[in-house]
Amino acid sequence: MRQCLRAALLGGALLLAGLPGGTHAQGTPSPAGPSAGAPAEAPLQVREIGSLHVGGRVAELSGLPSREIVYSPGAPPIRLDPNGQFQVEQMYAQYVRLQDPRARYPLILAHGGGLTGVTYETTPDGRPGWQMLFLRAGHDVYVTDAVERGRAGWARFPEILPGEPVFRTMGEGWGLFRVGPADGWNIEPSLRRAFPDTRFPAAAWNRFMRQGVPRWTTTDRQVQAGYDALVQQVCPCVILVHSQGGNFGFTAALNAPDKVRAVIAVEPSGTPPAGADAARLRGIPHLVVWGDHIEGNPFWTNIRANVGRWQARIREAGGTADTLDLPAQGIRGNSHMLMMDDNNAEIAARIQDWMARQGLMR
Amino acid sequence: MRQCLRAALLGGALLLAGLPGGTHAQGTPSPAGPSAGAPAEAPLQVREIGSLHVGGRVAELSGLPSREIVYSPGAPPIRLDPNGQFQVEQMYAQYVRLQDPRARYPLILAHGGGLTGVTYETTPDGRPGWQMLFLRAGHDVYVTDAVERGRAGWARFPEILPGEPVFRTMGEGWGLFRVGPADGWNIEPSLRRAFPDTRFPAAAWNRFMRQGVPRWTTTDRQVQAGYDALVQQVCPCVILVHSQGGNFGFTAALNAPDKVRAVIAVEPSGTPPAGADAARLRGIPHLVVWGDHIEGNPFWTNIRANVGRWQARIREAGGTADTLDLPAQGIRGNSHMLMMDDNNAEIAARIQDWMARQGLMR
Repeated sequence: MRQCLRAALLGGALLLAGLPGGTHAQGTPSPAGPSAGAPAEAPLQVREIGSLHVGGRVAELSGLPSREIVYSPGAPPIRLDPNGQFQVEQMYAQYVRLQDPRARYPLILAHGGGLTGVTYETTPDGRPGWQMLFLRAGHDVYVTDAVERGRAGWARFPEILPGEPVFRTMGEGWGLFRVGPADGWNIEPSLRRAFPDTRFPAAAWNRFMRQGVPRWTTTDRQVQAGYDALVQQVCPCVILVHSQGGNFGFTAALNAPDKVRAVIAVEPSGTPPAGADAARLRGIPHLVVWGDHIEGNPFWTNIRANVGRWQARIREAGGTADTLDLPAQGIRGNSHMLMMDDNNAEIAARIQDWMARQGLMR
Repeated sequence: MRQCLRAALLGGALLLAGLPGGTHAQGTPSPAGPSAGAPAEAPLQVREIGSLHVGGRVAELSGLPSREIVYSPGAPPIRLDPNGQFQVEQMYAQYVRLQDPRARYPLILAHGGGLTGVTYETTPDGRPGWQMLFLRAGHDVYVTDAVERGRAGWARFPEILPGEPVFRTMGEGWGLFRVGPADGWNIEPSLRRAFPDTRFPAAAWNRFMRQGVPRWTTTDRQVQAGYDALVQQVCPCVILVHSQGGNFGFTAALNAPDKVRAVIAVEPSGTPPAGADAARLRGIPHLVVWGDHIEGNPFWTNIRANVGRWQARIREAGGTADTLDLPAQGIRGNSHMLMMDDNNAEIAARIQDWMARQGLMR
């Protein structure tokens, strides 16, 4: 069973990898939703699906004026006093537990900035996301929304959440996520210029933009507290983080080295401060995954260098901090959103192999 | 198979129903998350898990000032121009498809105001939610977040979303959701007064509050458009709506009577306008479900009367508009959030029986 599912995952991956860059998976399912002919595989044996919120605090507001509102058509108006106590700064996780997981620990999937756990649930062109692929590989999977993102909810600002939220334009990510050159963006799809070898489903860019949510840049402390509370509640575990989630994952391991069994950082955008004690991570294997088109991009070469220094400090302390550099392995064209790229199954399979080598599978 | 799962659902329900009001399910799982010893049942045979966003539009902002922001610690600052195009007003749905569904159509679960699809994923005290219970009953289940809620994302206001959001205080819902008298709320849990017979897990009230998200009261048109887009994408289907979702579900059926096979409105707070053509719903069975403590509550008796008039118009047009009035059936103490009450499995089983009687199961 284990072998056949691993084979299915890897097999599907290699099949995808054989496709020309930029095209979609064979028999591409409609982005309408469920992949038409998707799983010829055996059904998942699921024990339980549910969710939880963790962390947060009670905040109090006072002195704000009242106003009258109607909650829904036909309902009588209600005088709303915006003052009072509010439950704020919690983090959200949805879990799918297998009847017979083959992984030793649950796998926590954490998104990057301006996004939510949806990052792992699907791809903009409607193929299976990493949630499904890692479930098939035998992991209990927790898909999370960070504090003030998605189902974690958000609070009044600036009274409770400091500063103001940032709303990502449709064009910003095109260059920042390395789907194409920054000046290759155009609101008119036919005029957009992607990298010729991009593996991102660029034709589904507008669908990807529907996954975006506002985010603050002033709430790192609150977001980290959410991660730390989640680790205390559901770990021992393996944490897989993306982009802005990178530093939160590295720091969650530093804050609970007894609970976090491994950290997989996919294109992490930040690192712990210079003073952080990397020796605490000696027993926690780390893997950092990088896509393509970083060379010649000052923003990303700078970030990769910062992360490289952090990995070096873990190794100097006697720990494991490996790198999966896809272009160096001959896999070209991956974007910053490589869990959505057309070879997302191949990349998941390589991460799965690394986890197996670290003894994280039964 | 079908029989044994229905029996399991109903059996669990009756067991729960036998418990004294206000206490929790036997062997109550920790609100920490996965229910410790939960399913002695057979594993769910799951074909696919994924999600999609539907609907929405491209909005444009111009003339707003730029500012410089740092996306994450260690990352270089970026000059952010808040102007540009934004993908806004989409709706979110996460789906779990069974290998062999016994329901004829997928079941869409839609939440009420100030909440998200989490309403159906769990209970504040960590028991299985209606998502899991209806999966076990043989439905493909779509759990949705309405426009501007949760993973659907929200947009800059007032430039894109009109007006301003409403943030629910920890105390507002205590009376509004009929867990206890409005003046029974207190920030100090030991001083809160619930109805003596409440079935809501009142001791977990603060955990329930973590599920809340801000909501607008000025976006009904956009929210309805999201529902209508979802129906076009994933139906034929059965829609189960709650509270504020009630009117959106009724109207979604009016807007696509060829796609919606049944509407189950749990404590709906609104109805279509007087001019709506109820005759369009002649072929679409409706069920309205009410909890307890409505008598003597002017806000809710008013709403129930409005909904009753809408049901009467459907019946006068030759349609089916049934009512599941729990107190009238001797089931006392249910709150507005009855999918979270300690007898949520019993109520799900009665709704399941209604769906079976309507010929919605294979």
